[in-house]
Amino acid sequence: MSWKSKDLLTLEELSAGEISLILDTASSFKEVSSRSVKKVPALRGRTVVLFFHEPSTRTRTSFELAAKRLSADILNIQTAGSSLVKGETLIDTLKTLEAMTIDAIVVRHKSSGVPQMLANVTPATVINAGDGAHEHPTQGLLDLFTIREQKGKVEGLTVTIVGDITHSRVARSNIHGLLKLGAKVRVCAPPTLLPAGIEKMGVTVFNDLDKALEGTDVVYVLRLQLERQKNNLFPTIREYSMTFGVNNERLKRAKKDAIVMHPGPMNRGVEISSGVADGPQSVIDDQVTNGVAVRMAVLYLLQGESNEKPS
Amino acid sequence: MSWKSKDLLTLEELSAGEISLILDTASSFKEVSSRSVKKVPALRGRTVVLFFHEPSTRTRTSFELAAKRLSADILNIQTAGSSLVKGETLIDTLKTLEAMTIDAIVVRHKSSGVPQMLANVTPATVINAGDGAHEHPTQGLLDLFTIREQKGKVEGLTVTIVGDITHSRVARSNIHGLLKLGAKVRVCAPPTLLPAGIEKMGVTVFNDLDKALEGTDVVYVLRLQLERQKNNLFPTIREYSMTFGVNNERLKRAKKDAIVMHPGPMNRGVEISSGVADGPQSVIDDQVTNGVAVRMAVLYLLQGESNEKPS
Amino acid sequence: MSWKSKDLLTLEELSAGEISLILDTASSFKEVSSRSVKKVPALRGRTVVLFFHEPSTRTRTSFELAAKRLSADILNIQTAGSSLVKGETLIDTLKTLEAMTIDAIVVRHKSSGVPQMLANVTPATVINAGDGAHEHPTQGLLDLFTIREQKGKVEGLTVTIVGDITHSRVARSNIHGLLKLGAKVRVCAPPTLLPAGIEKMGVTVFNDLDKALEGTDVVYVLRLQLERQKNNLFPTIREYSMTFGVNNERLKRAKKDAIVMHPGPMNRGVEISSGVADGPQSVIDDQVTNGVAVRMAVLYLLQGESNEKPS
Repeated sequence: MSWKSKDLLTLEELSAGEISLILDTASSFKEVSSRSVKKVPALRGRTVVLFFHEPSTRTRTSFELAAKRLSADILNIQTAGSSLVKGETLIDTLKTLEAMTIDAIVVRHKSSGVPQMLANVTPATVINAGDGAHEHPTQGLLDLFTIREQKGKVEGLTVTIVGDITHSRVARSNIHGLLKLGAKVRVCAPPTLLPAGIEKMGVTVFNDLDKALEGTDVVYVLRLQLERQKNNLFPTIREYSMTFGVNNERLKRAKKDAIVMHPGPMNRGVEISSGVADGPQSVIDDQVTNGVAVRMAVLYLLQGESNEKPS
Repeated sequence: MSWKSKDLLTLEELSAGEISLILDTASSFKEVSSRSVKKVPALRGRTVVLFFHEPSTRTRTSFELAAKRLSADILNIQTAGSSLVKGETLIDTLKTLEAMTIDAIVVRHKSSGVPQMLANVTPATVINAGDGAHEHPTQGLLDLFTIREQKGKVEGLTVTIVGDITHSRVARSNIHGLLKLGAKVRVCAPPTLLPAGIEKMGVTVFNDLDKALEGTDVVYVLRLQLERQKNNLFPTIREYSMTFGVNNERLKRAKKDAIVMHPGPMNRGVEISSGVADGPQSVIDDQVTNGVAVRMAVLYLLQGESNEKPS
Repeated sequence: MSWKSKDLLTLEELSAGEISLILDTASSFKEVSSRSVKKVPALRGRTVVLFFHEPSTRTRTSFELAAKRLSADILNIQTAGSSLVKGETLIDTLKTLEAMTIDAIVVRHKSSGVPQMLANVTPATVINAGDGAHEHPTQGLLDLFTIREQKGKVEGLTVTIVGDITHSRVARSNIHGLLKLGAKVRVCAPPTLLPAGIEKMGVTVFNDLDKALEGTDVVYVLRLQLERQKNNLFPTIREYSMTFGVNNERLKRAKKDAIVMHPGPMNRGVEISSGVADGPQSVIDDQVTNGVAVRMAVLYLLQGESNEKPS
């Protein structure tokens, strides 16, 4: 199987086979980052633009390292100080970058659909690094990679996603990816943070965390965006933490060998206790490590297999 | 002919021969950016500093790509967060960079003459990336390159520059370059946006856009700096657009094969209609593409021909 | 002698032998920056993170060039726009970077002890680039290198440090380093800018600049942090300058061949006159040049001598 699309915009549109191809490719790239010389020439002389319209350390840094370890040249463009503040349209900025003969653009934007819109008008590769509450496909892929690495497979596992489902692009990408690879997905949140009709995606809804964790293989804790409280979507941080915070006591409901995941950055003591975050079941650091490998694989596959292979 | 100056500060001071040398060198570099491996070793191990004191995406990015494709090491220094906020003088900052043994410094500053001042005190190469309303020589060069590429020559062509001439370093560099290469230059603007005595530069002044476009080979549309309206230099954006905006109707006055240029970023619907910007006569994207090649040529020539040639 | 620690946190904890090893290694790297190809492959494929929580041009740029000239990959992380603004702890940010398999982290922070805290929890190399009023060891090393280069030795010299000793990490690192290498150290400041008990470090205290400069080999002028005036630590800038500013008249008290140093950025006309800063005894630019070499040596030694040697 070889890669056919020039872009990676969502996990919703990928087949199980395409997802597996990315994960398999990531396995071979993961080894590169464990060397002392963490560099392969696969994308030498290619230009990758990191085009971030929301603050991000984790994702931007992960993509930057991935591209550098593939020997690509990087351009970092952030909204502050860019032509966008001079009133240029997003598409004109894209056209300008494209005219400079760039190869790939990694875009994060607060509005859903922006990566798709850009992909429609450019021959360059577009990779969605998070668009509004829509999708964050490389996060979903690194999570799938981590689960497969820890559990040997994804199919047949029960995964419980806890937290603000409504506003989470991470949840949405994970739900699509997990279901495609054959996992059972539970979501658990207060009703105000659950989108209407979420069951139609094929997930099971819980409002009680203890029940949601019962017998689960994977506990996926979402970051609580504390600013949601202003909109009265939950009463107090303390109450949220007591009802939906994952701590060691609660974690006992899950399978003994359950793993705990979080996309970061964490609010310790809010959605996750430090005991769980730093405990033996946590694979949160593995997620970060795997993020670089998955993004190397994505950049490599989307830039065509005519490239030099890692060696 | 070989290059003699260590700096590129203005087009006013260059001879026609020197301009042609840059354009010829740019031709050979343009091919590099069309490869999948967009990189030559010409400036490997050299250090190029991008020293921008005004916001810029287009120019800074273009220089950054040019330097990276020549394999130079880049330092990005922007005013916010630099020692300048601690009260250090510009020259002390330059001296510090110079002591780190940098090879070239690309400077943009809101004050005319700053690149010249820096060039006077450092043995490093200084390239003016735009100083106040004075000059923006690499923009002028990429425009000349684009005209020559599209029309086969510059000599004998009629070029009409439309817009705020008074405040435009782009206009000033283009006028110098076009006249040196033998073009006829017309400028067209409301009287409040035309500097007194501009005719002495050797251009013909028009206040009526229809007449200015009559039989022209090149229509060069300047960006309208919308903040000028506050100073009452033009009445309303709508009126400016009706009187000096270039649209398809007006463009018919120009030669049938006239090309349309704009330095970007564009205010669509103000100084240029989307129909023209995206139409068949527009070479605006070519300008951007050529910008990288021209800047590669400038960096290469100023760093001495003892360098490795592109191969 | 070979290097044993993974980190460089202070000069206080280094032996004279370790300091000399760094200075000797820096000598061989200094030559690299004088070449036209300023690059050796020593750290190819290593990832160096520049993690700056205070504004800095000089030190950050120096480390960035040092790492690039060793062929390392660089990540620049500044506080604005990082996950830290989303409330993540410093250690979680570090853990995230570490999970991306970075090799070294260069950290500047306003709080004393932060580099030590980070070094305790990560297997990566941590280099202190200035922590609060505690230490700035690479500044101390580059100053020692410069003195040794200019004077042929450090032992037996008399070095006078003038200025705000209390708040200066530069002073603290220099005092430790100079005493270890056998210099005699004088400090001179108004009583409000001298920490109580400073004599116990082994230095001689002066409140009169003329006496402090008498017969000294090295005059080390500290930057006056002008904001200290708000706290009434000195009466006026003018009075400070008259009493503790180093000018050519005062400099005559020192030895004829005394050298003058300043860590930059300078307040010309405040703690140092332009006549002295730009005069024949000033080695301020040499300090900057040597900073790159010293930081190359530090990165190289801390990353293990199993690396490729400079060639």
